[in-house]
Amino acid sequence: MSEKGERSREHILATAKRLVMDKGFAGTSIDDILKAAGVSKGAFFHHFRSKADLASQLMRWHSAQDIRMFRDLAARAEALHDDPYEQLQFYLKAFEGYISNPTEPSRGCMYAVYTYESEAFDEDVNDVVAETLREWSAIYIRKFQEVIDRYPPARPVTAKELAEMIVSLIEGGLILQRAYGNTAITARQSEHFRAYLDMLFAPSMAASN
Amino acid sequence: MSEKGERSREHILATAKRLVMDKGFAGTSIDDILKAAGVSKGAFFHHFRSKADLASQLMRWHSAQDIRMFRDLAARAEALHDDPYEQLQFYLKAFEGYISNPTEPSRGCMYAVYTYESEAFDEDVNDVVAETLREWSAIYIRKFQEVIDRYPPARPVTAKELAEMIVSLIEGGLILQRAYGNTAITARQSEHFRAYLDMLFAPSMAASN
Repeated sequence: MSEKGERSREHILATAKRLVMDKGFAGTSIDDILKAAGVSKGAFFHHFRSKADLASQLMRWHSAQDIRMFRDLAARAEALHDDPYEQLQFYLKAFEGYISNPTEPSRGCMYAVYTYESEAFDEDVNDVVAETLREWSAIYIRKFQEVIDRYPPARPVTAKELAEMIVSLIEGGLILQRAYGNTAITARQSEHFRAYLDMLFAPSMAASN
Repeated sequence: MSEKGERSREHILATAKRLVMDKGFAGTSIDDILKAAGVSKGAFFHHFRSKADLASQLMRWHSAQDIRMFRDLAARAEALHDDPYEQLQFYLKAFEGYISNPTEPSRGCMYAVYTYESEAFDEDVNDVVAETLREWSAIYIRKFQEVIDRYPPARPVTAKELAEMIVSLIEGGLILQRAYGNTAITARQSEHFRAYLDMLFAPSMAASN
């Protein structure tokens, strides 16, 4: 696709994402998107065969961006710190800054939207959602495993359990954040989770110093 | 309303709830509900003025049921145990049993559905959602406060922080549960949370015995 064509596709996808995050996928019509994006029906159907095709491209586009962001954060954490616990703290704190940005309040999570409208999507789209959640979790699992290997936790806990916990806290925090209109809630969950990590790992970190 | 009328209303609401949990609110048409419930248009409009009125009645009906269930669990916990920590454990475990029931798998959380389609609902409906989440959280806050008052935690933590954490874990766990098709995930989050509570409160419980 030409650069201009790709820009036009991304403009439509970004507009669709904003609308879908406010009204859900079924609640967003193609006409809503055309109007909000200021594009013609022809331009839309040049890029998307149907609303189902938009659903699929939107999730794949969002997922690729999202995973790239998390991988970048993890890479920055690793570049800046040698100690796996410090890397983990950096990674969690960087996400807290991102998710509570008051000038660009997070509208929530696209995976949650798709998950709650799962019957409306083709199986392969639902598979992309589950696969992306797994990829995102895998970044946490890797970081937690490195910490557990270096600093035996105060009680038996697996990297997978911890990863599932922080992913759930973020997803649940975003729901409360939307319901209460308070952009601080998800970051607060992550901070609380870091306090729990301190209880788990501080004793063996102290012992190793 | 006559008993028969109320039964008919509840039948329509229960059917609508099931459909909304699978496809979202916007994705569920009145025709879908009529078909799935096996009722006539006349019967539907006898109870509901419009789809917006259904949205409002559905949330109020669900919210009343849900809060009653949580209050019943808390009352049972208090009837069976004197110690606030044992009450809390009972309350959390009872919910774990309910949410992971494999014969009637939880479809997720209605508040999450409404929260993610918030633009589609009147302000008063969104207010009911936020108010219900606060009422639900208040039950946890009360139980946590009783525990904190009896057993000073190993690190400073407020009842509200703990309540927000378990509510987020449940909401986020339900998203993963749906995405992965695994009914055990939310209960696992709650178990993990109980392990965290043990780290917080076991030292002062041991000291008080």
